Amino acid sequence: MDVTKQVLKIGADAKAASRELGKLSTRRKNLILEAMAEELDAQRNFIQAENQKDLTAGREAGLTSAMLDRLELTDDRIDGMIKGLRDVAVLTDPVGEEISTWNRPNGLQIHKRRVPIGVIGIIFESRPNVTCDAAALCFKTSNAVILRGGKEAIHSNMAIANAMQKGGETKGMPENCIQLIPTTDREAVKVMCQMTDYLDLIIPRGGESLIRAVMEMAHVPVIKHYTGVCHTYVDISADLPMAWKISENAKCQRPGVCNAMETLLVHKDIAADFLPKMGEIFSGHQVVIRGDAQTCQLLSNAVPATEEDWTTEYVDLILSIKVVDDVDAAIQHINTYGSGHSDAIIASDEKTTVQFLNEVDSSTVYVNASTRFTDGAEFGMGAEIGVSTDKLHARGPMGLEELTTYKYVVEGKGQIRE
Amino acid sequence: MDVTKQVLKIGADAKAASRELGKLSTRRKNLILEAMAEELDAQRNFIQAENQKDLTAGREAGLTSAMLDRLELTDDRIDGMIKGLRDVAVLTDPVGEEISTWNRPNGLQIHKRRVPIGVIGIIFESRPNVTCDAAALCFKTSNAVILRGGKEAIHSNMAIANAMQKGGETKGMPENCIQLIPTTDREAVKVMCQMTDYLDLIIPRGGESLIRAVMEMAHVPVIKHYTGVCHTYVDISADLPMAWKISENAKCQRPGVCNAMETLLVHKDIAADFLPKMGEIFSGHQVVIRGDAQTCQLLSNAVPATEEDWTTEYVDLILSIKVVDDVDAAIQHINTYGSGHSDAIIASDEKTTVQFLNEVDSSTVYVNASTRFTDGAEFGMGAEIGVSTDKLHARGPMGLEELTTYKYVVEGKGQIRE
Repeated sequence: MDVTKQVLKIGADAKAASRELGKLSTRRKNLILEAMAEELDAQRNFIQAENQKDLTAGREAGLTSAMLDRLELTDDRIDGMIKGLRDVAVLTDPVGEEISTWNRPNGLQIHKRRVPIGVIGIIFESRPNVTCDAAALCFKTSNAVILRGGKEAIHSNMAIANAMQKGGETKGMPENCIQLIPTTDREAVKVMCQMTDYLDLIIPRGGESLIRAVMEMAHVPVIKHYTGVCHTYVDISADLPMAWKISENAKCQRPGVCNAMETLLVHKDIAADFLPKMGEIFSGHQVVIRGDAQTCQLLSNAVPATEEDWTTEYVDLILSIKVVDDVDAAIQHINTYGSGHSDAIIASDEKTTVQFLNEVDSSTVYVNASTRFTDGAEFGMGAEIGVSTDKLHARGPMGLEELTTYKYVVEGKGQIRE
Repeated sequence: MDVTKQVLKIGADAKAASRELGKLSTRRKNLILEAMAEELDAQRNFIQAENQKDLTAGREAGLTSAMLDRLELTDDRIDGMIKGLRDVAVLTDPVGEEISTWNRPNGLQIHKRRVPIGVIGIIFESRPNVTCDAAALCFKTSNAVILRGGKEAIHSNMAIANAMQKGGETKGMPENCIQLIPTTDREAVKVMCQMTDYLDLIIPRGGESLIRAVMEMAHVPVIKHYTGVCHTYVDISADLPMAWKISENAKCQRPGVCNAMETLLVHKDIAADFLPKMGEIFSGHQVVIRGDAQTCQLLSNAVPATEEDWTTEYVDLILSIKVVDDVDAAIQHINTYGSGHSDAIIASDEKTTVQFLNEVDSSTVYVNASTRFTDGAEFGMGAEIGVSTDKLHARGPMGLEELTTYKYVVEGKGQIRE
């Protein structure tokens, strides 16, 4: 069968599955999640054997040790997936929630009710545990899911997806709720991106080039989880010890993630007090600093930043620093060079703070806290499928609720339009 | 200047305008809307003179009388636009609303706050009053708007958009909040559809070919206002007089709109009681009926329906009718051939009704009411920019709230991630 036909069949099957999924009760869905957890445990040896195939191929293909590490399904990681399934089972099911209800003067009663989106495509890279996490969240919200993982994890991903589907079926999960594209042919991604009859949403999770490619091809709606070029602005009214502590945390606590700080902005009238000690703290973490002219004057170990630095997501122990005239300049910089992810102000002046929070056009804006909190679990959502850098449908951390849409249910007694 | 540069400049100007727009208070926005209304009134003669240019060109180009009628800006229609602006001024401003607020165990306070989307592109056809209506709703929600109308209305649209911008500026509206693409070059639409740096959303309003073209080209997110292939299903448990009255209303009260019924589905065990009288009622309205075999047996004036009929939006006094075995078959038909717009069941049996309302995958589902109620004003939204047939971000009638997104505002006291 050619790739196009193969992917379109998967799409049609997923659409049919989504109709059946909508009929499952929350209790039934939770039993199914538990059955998936048990099946993953029962197939642990098989999954690890399949994972070994990927690891062997990866070593032969010359993957870095970091990539091989991300690929490996240790016992701990399988335990993590099993626990994840059980955690999702206990989360509140958003499907069926009445978002609002009102009556019209003609007696019509209108209910705005939360419903599944339908069929969701997840296109992701490397980590095979994404297969389990993403499928669990889609299933809990009664969405059928079509997964497309990276070619280096194809055996691991297939084993996980098949175990979940098989385990679920023992407790009455409809066929084809969880499907993985079984080919590594790149044409499959294009077909997915354009099968508007079957797919309601695509969520790409991965590097910039993957997301750009999906955007270029997609006719299906896409919610992007794009780069995080996150800023912290230290205002003249900042409490300096707090600013040092938060900036250190935002950059150094886990530099390889999207909510880590990439650029530090400092008010010019506080730079001489703030930067030298800040530079020492960063030196202690081996942070490489790329600064504008004023920063380089104050920090002897800083190297000059280029224009490109201001838009770069380092996801590493590298930081760009710029001295700005005031909060207006900070906002202007963030709205120009940032990625609309997470940005913070450290300040005690209320007027300045309110201006920053209002005018910075990002999914999450902070006052006096680390940008590292932009995360479904930290927000209390229980789980997240990712962090949207888009503005439509979902912005910021996406939990279960963001995997649903709504419909209007209108109850009448014979009303007609006059 | 070439078209690409011209449209990109409009985009960049709109983005800059959107930053300024976000700073306006609700009171200021309402004063500006009033000033727009006054300017439209003051420029009435000029607008009508520009409209005459379009009408003359339209006659020369051989536009139908219906198209010329839609194009004409009579005094009544200009009064309608002026009233529309004042109506929007009194609507509640959704921007700034706290959707929800919660505290985390670490003391972080999280606010989910409603904010403008940014820059919205509206691509529309024929009626010049859309220029005013759409721009007013975008402005009220602090979004900059880029309008692209049909070439047959270019002079009228330019005159209206310029009057609104000029009137607004007298009360402090920033430059470039309301811009109309001043060229009829089709390349301009393509540039709009792909300028992801400047445009946050495109709403195409028009025929199927326009919407398909936008979908094919767009990298910017699109919310479609697509066809309305709306159904009414008359169940065996229906109250027949109610079913006759609702079906008549859904088809005949205004057949040329998207929420009018296009297909009537009838339970097989009630067809012989229901259809003959229904056929008489439709005959009284000169409705042409295209039926399946059983319908043609029961209605002598019905002609056989083809497969294509079940997916056709007639927007005319034409109706397809099918006799179905039961509610399952009705749901299956609607989910296969419908457009996810508005679908109704006429029934008294609760189990059947609940099944229909749950399983029909449409923006609006009705029990015992006419599909003609799918409309922002009828829903009590005060105004609508259209009816979304998409599932993401907005579904069904889109009012002011649907022209906003949200951001998370997080207040801390020095919290860092452990």
